[in-house]
Amino acid sequence: MATPSATAADPVALAAELIRAPSVTPRSAGALELVAGRLEAAGYRVERLTFETGGIPIPNLYARIGTDSPNLCFAGHVDVVPEGDTAQWAHGPFAGTVQDGVLYGRGAVDMKGAVAAFLAAALAHGKPARGSLSFLITGDEEGPALDGTVQVVEWLKAKGETIDHCVLGEPTNPDALGDAFKVGRRGSLSGIITVKGVQGHVAYPHLADNPVPRLVKLVAALTAAPLDEGSDFFPPSNLEVVSVDVGNPVFNLIPAQATARFNVRFNDRFSLESLKGEIVRRLDTAGAAYALDFQPGASQSFLTAPGPFTDLVADAVEAVTGRRPEPSTSGGTSDARFIKDLCPVVEFGLVGRTMHKVDEATPVADVHALTAIYGRIIARYFATFA
Amino acid sequence: MATPSATAADPVALAAELIRAPSVTPRSAGALELVAGRLEAAGYRVERLTFETGGIPIPNLYARIGTDSPNLCFAGHVDVVPEGDTAQWAHGPFAGTVQDGVLYGRGAVDMKGAVAAFLAAALAHGKPARGSLSFLITGDEEGPALDGTVQVVEWLKAKGETIDHCVLGEPTNPDALGDAFKVGRRGSLSGIITVKGVQGHVAYPHLADNPVPRLVKLVAALTAAPLDEGSDFFPPSNLEVVSVDVGNPVFNLIPAQATARFNVRFNDRFSLESLKGEIVRRLDTAGAAYALDFQPGASQSFLTAPGPFTDLVADAVEAVTGRRPEPSTSGGTSDARFIKDLCPVVEFGLVGRTMHKVDEATPVADVHALTAIYGRIIARYFATFA
Ligand SMILES: [Zn+2]
Ligand SMILES: [Zn+2]
Repeated sequence: MATPSATAADPVALAAELIRAPSVTPRSAGALELVAGRLEAAGYRVERLTFETGGIPIPNLYARIGTDSPNLCFAGHVDVVPEGDTAQWAHGPFAGTVQDGVLYGRGAVDMKGAVAAFLAAALAHGKPARGSLSFLITGDEEGPALDGTVQVVEWLKAKGETIDHCVLGEPTNPDALGDAFKVGRRGSLSGIITVKGVQGHVAYPHLADNPVPRLVKLVAALTAAPLDEGSDFFPPSNLEVVSVDVGNPVFNLIPAQATARFNVRFNDRFSLESLKGEIVRRLDTAGAAYALDFQPGASQSFLTAPGPFTDLVADAVEAVTGRRPEPSTSGGTSDARFIKDLCPVVEFGLVGRTMHKVDEATPVADVHALTAIYGRIIARYFATFA
Repeated sequence: MATPSATAADPVALAAELIRAPSVTPRSAGALELVAGRLEAAGYRVERLTFETGGIPIPNLYARIGTDSPNLCFAGHVDVVPEGDTAQWAHGPFAGTVQDGVLYGRGAVDMKGAVAAFLAAALAHGKPARGSLSFLITGDEEGPALDGTVQVVEWLKAKGETIDHCVLGEPTNPDALGDAFKVGRRGSLSGIITVKGVQGHVAYPHLADNPVPRLVKLVAALTAAPLDEGSDFFPPSNLEVVSVDVGNPVFNLIPAQATARFNVRFNDRFSLESLKGEIVRRLDTAGAAYALDFQPGASQSFLTAPGPFTDLVADAVEAVTGRRPEPSTSGGTSDARFIKDLCPVVEFGLVGRTMHKVDEATPVADVHALTAIYGRIIARYFATFA
């Protein structure tokens, strides 16, 4: 067992040092400052950006070396999900332990390992001869995401800062490095259906109006058929009713209200507006009165169309791993949903199997391979676009 | 405004005195002892019966005057539901105030007014020349009902005590004295349907198994058609799904479990067993795995068949009010569900409109009229059956 210390060029030591900062959202615990210090030492101009629309100050940073175009940005987060029950971890969640070639700790794959890999690759590359390298690192990706990338993107827009292409370091490989990279993400829309009734005793149903049968009809209408069968680059749109709730603890009372909560992950066959329209159309077929509240934080689907930039990333992955990664648009949302408003964005990182779990871990070989991939992306990027 | 004091013959004063004992279940607060004292003074043998299977000692009484058959029993309860927010009452809930010919207070109609009326009628009648008069008064009707009439009935059975007919004093008139009397009650059966799934993130539905669509199908199957269209003496059986619950506070998680709670009020077209069979049959048509737990405390429907006893009660009501009461089997359950195992039972009491509400009240004229009705029932009963 070894606990490596960070050196400028060792991505595993850097990752371990980041893991030792217990930066569970919204705490930074020094993780962001560690990245800032390394970038400043390497000549980057570092902007520390603290936002607190959610009531808690969240530190973020944007750092750039070079002033001219094109500007290749690496985006990532140093916050992590909670460690849960520490007793269940074979290795301390914030120890940054390496054992038998595996680096353990919360954030090892999601995504301190990737941040360390890109940092090591960028520091090794140095200041580009033509063009710029930049970092967009946030401390609010795993939390409410109110004061992270979404705010940095607004700040960049307001400042007139141009980013030409972005690589986001989320874990995109299901099983082994080289499996897949993300070229888009589905959109997400959540809503609450509320059905009002009239409360009353079950023995006198004519004096009451039970909302439950109507809620059931509405949910059935909403889920009667698939939304679509997928598109060229996306899996099918999918709606899940994740909760139905009345909260009536007794058996002799007809309740006054019933609700259902749903979420849709949708592809490029729908816009947010057309999806809302389809949901209302389906609910209206149930022939039951309801109220529908779409939740804030909805996102459109997006796609970074195949072309020189996606090819460049896939080529780099193939050159290092020997495998051509699948362009993927499956899975959850990521901060790419905000960055896509600035520039084309692709995502490639470590193997996600242990993310958010006990004993989150990555082979150190993967961290080194990822550093090599990011290094190839940087080199090829400036060769191609500068 | 007057606050009458009790005299042996004044049912309104007796009712007011009972109201002044704040006997919210499980407290007796002297209410039962007041009844016991009056009965003992009139020559009744009073058995004080305390049961505490529910963990709290609950006083009840059985009192009888006379030793031979037939034994006409009056059944009732002196416990009341909580007063709620006293500030909303125009008259103190436990003041027993009479104003402008109306007696106010918790229990005025449910059912201290009826207990007082029967007590006054029985005391006025005195010891029957042939036959017996008895009282079964409980302190646990509005609560869990574990240590009230159900236990007294067991005690009576164990003792070999015979009751030939029973009048229960629940408020049976929807709008005016003389509207209706109960000749039966529907049965009641409650159950919980549980559907298990596999929890997972909404972005990866293939790794999860959402129980909500299956629960919705099961509820739809359960409620697809009426259970029946009623019978000669009963309204239709009715099933209400009173709650559906997941309790998932977030939108991005497919839940592991969903439940539905239902209650059936059913008539004499079903036995408990045939109803359970019908529920299972309906659920099985949904083609979805589920667990079904029927709740304890289910009751069969019962009917006191039309005949001399029901005629006698209806005649007495008509003689005093000028209106022939409807024989009814609608509404909730009552302690008649336990008494029906001993003897034929009918229910007649005051007007129920204000029961369980703020400013529960009865016209004092109704209390006097009810006393006259009970007096006629007693007189005619012994003339007919003794
Ligand atoms: Zn992440
Ligand atoms: Zn009652």
